[in-house]
Amino acid sequence: MESNIVGVIGAGSFGTAIANLLAHNNDVLIFSRNPEVVSEINTQHLHKNIVLSPRIRATSNLQEVAEQCTLIFPIVPSSSFRRMMINFSPYLRPYHILIHGTKGLDLVGIDESKPRTMNVSRKNMFTMSEVIKQESVVVREYKEVIKIGQKALNSKHFHVFGTHQLLGAELAGALKNVIAIGSGILEGKGMGKNIQAMLITRGLTEMIYFGKALGATPEAFLGTAGIGDLVATATSPNSRNFTVGLRLAKGESIADISKTMEETAEGIRTLRITRSLARHYKLHTPITEMLHEIVFEGFDVEKAMDYLMEYPYGVDVDFL
Amino acid sequence: MESNIVGVIGAGSFGTAIANLLAHNNDVLIFSRNPEVVSEINTQHLHKNIVLSPRIRATSNLQEVAEQCTLIFPIVPSSSFRRMMINFSPYLRPYHILIHGTKGLDLVGIDESKPRTMNVSRKNMFTMSEVIKQESVVVREYKEVIKIGQKALNSKHFHVFGTHQLLGAELAGALKNVIAIGSGILEGKGMGKNIQAMLITRGLTEMIYFGKALGATPEAFLGTAGIGDLVATATSPNSRNFTVGLRLAKGESIADISKTMEETAEGIRTLRITRSLARHYKLHTPITEMLHEIVFEGFDVEKAMDYLMEYPYGVDVDFL
Repeated sequence: MESNIVGVIGAGSFGTAIANLLAHNNDVLIFSRNPEVVSEINTQHLHKNIVLSPRIRATSNLQEVAEQCTLIFPIVPSSSFRRMMINFSPYLRPYHILIHGTKGLDLVGIDESKPRTMNVSRKNMFTMSEVIKQESVVVREYKEVIKIGQKALNSKHFHVFGTHQLLGAELAGALKNVIAIGSGILEGKGMGKNIQAMLITRGLTEMIYFGKALGATPEAFLGTAGIGDLVATATSPNSRNFTVGLRLAKGESIADISKTMEETAEGIRTLRITRSLARHYKLHTPITEMLHEIVFEGFDVEKAMDYLMEYPYGVDVDFL
Repeated sequence: MESNIVGVIGAGSFGTAIANLLAHNNDVLIFSRNPEVVSEINTQHLHKNIVLSPRIRATSNLQEVAEQCTLIFPIVPSSSFRRMMINFSPYLRPYHILIHGTKGLDLVGIDESKPRTMNVSRKNMFTMSEVIKQESVVVREYKEVIKIGQKALNSKHFHVFGTHQLLGAELAGALKNVIAIGSGILEGKGMGKNIQAMLITRGLTEMIYFGKALGATPEAFLGTAGIGDLVATATSPNSRNFTVGLRLAKGESIADISKTMEETAEGIRTLRITRSLARHYKLHTPITEMLHEIVFEGFDVEKAMDYLMEYPYGVDVDFL
């Protein structure tokens, strides 16, 4: 049952980028629910304005992915991840290896249409790997998965770092999107690199506070999955979440921005979740608090800055 | 002997910036050896293209600084810091409080004109606070110093974070300049934000390795003095060390760059020091190694990138 075709579930821009990286070393089968996307990829080798490797083939049949591939990268928005896994799990077998690339969180039994009444805690919030475990009968965490993932992805231009802190890495990936929105706001307001660096630093500290409350150690937050991803996302105009902040700063409403973005910016939903987590666990996370006010309540950015400047911070680094 | 005039020693761009920040809350006396600079500040309130607060007065008399000020900020290049302290210490009294802002290292008994034979270790390398202690008779580390510094500097637009990890904070401040040179090189070569973020992340890890070898814990490296300063310096075109990297990438030699820069880029000297430290303590610091080759040996940037991409990194975060 071993196969050299690597699967990717989800043909958004991140899934497409991963597919192209994988195609350096492997034949790739990419899944999209949308038949037009499948046809576009298979006939024009073009998607999301990106030229795709000829080694990439698309399908709208999940069963085919499971049958053709041993190693599979699920990369779909967090809000549809569990549904995808429910559909996919009947085809999964013990030899399958899943490495997800979704940087968001899953909620169970929470009405997200009423954000003011949300009460999120470790009991109803899950990472994608937890969703995978819950929805598929036989999934084990292989130590070799890091090596297998590196072998599939590593190339002259792409170096994969591994971590054994799965929970920390998943939380870091999701939480950093919120800080990226904040960084975009500062950029949009023409504020300097120093303030942005401070946001990144104190934002990382808040990410670690959330991680600790949810059972993760700081390690992953301090490596490539944490600082690395945070700095990249929070300083790059190509980042979706950064762009959300940029547009907010220019005066657009979050409703208008969400409507006109082609893909979900996970950070918007994650910000609702972290604000609720902060309340539940009584965390001192003033950046999260201020971002929530700015994004969802129209709070003035300058006033938020004043608030943060006068916030009675304790010791700089208290999370070790 | 208490005085509300705050002293600044050194009228470089950083000293001048600190003087302006201090002038929000205090009268300021700034020292420069250069009588022309003193006269320019006192008559035109202009220096380094920066308009100075009318609350800033300049002097070329060190004794006057000691007599007029209780709180003093020495901010001179690391290579002349000890000489400055030797000149200054006869005027110092037990009530004086020094908070330095020099982000470099001091060497004793080492011929820096022969970099290939340098053997730097904890025995002959000192931070500026260590130089202060060595050269002045009565200097104590007050716990209140953080509060005094915050009171003098805090304003609506400037928030001072404190740390009790003095050694770590000093090392972080010095070592980050080396990584900033690397970041400038990547920028100059038109490489993307992802690679820059990776350099920052792995560079921070190397900084922590150096810190550990020299007796510092990771805390300070993970706070505003570490990540914060690193991200700010390594993403800002206004940073001197970043600019060095940028110009190197455009083909200038380090000799030409040093000659034409108005102020010292500490990172160049610090890179010599860290390369020697890495050899002495047998550290795995491939970024430091490659930067040394690029900056001083004309090694090709693309080849260095290939080397780093294929470097057999172990666990991502192993410094906690």
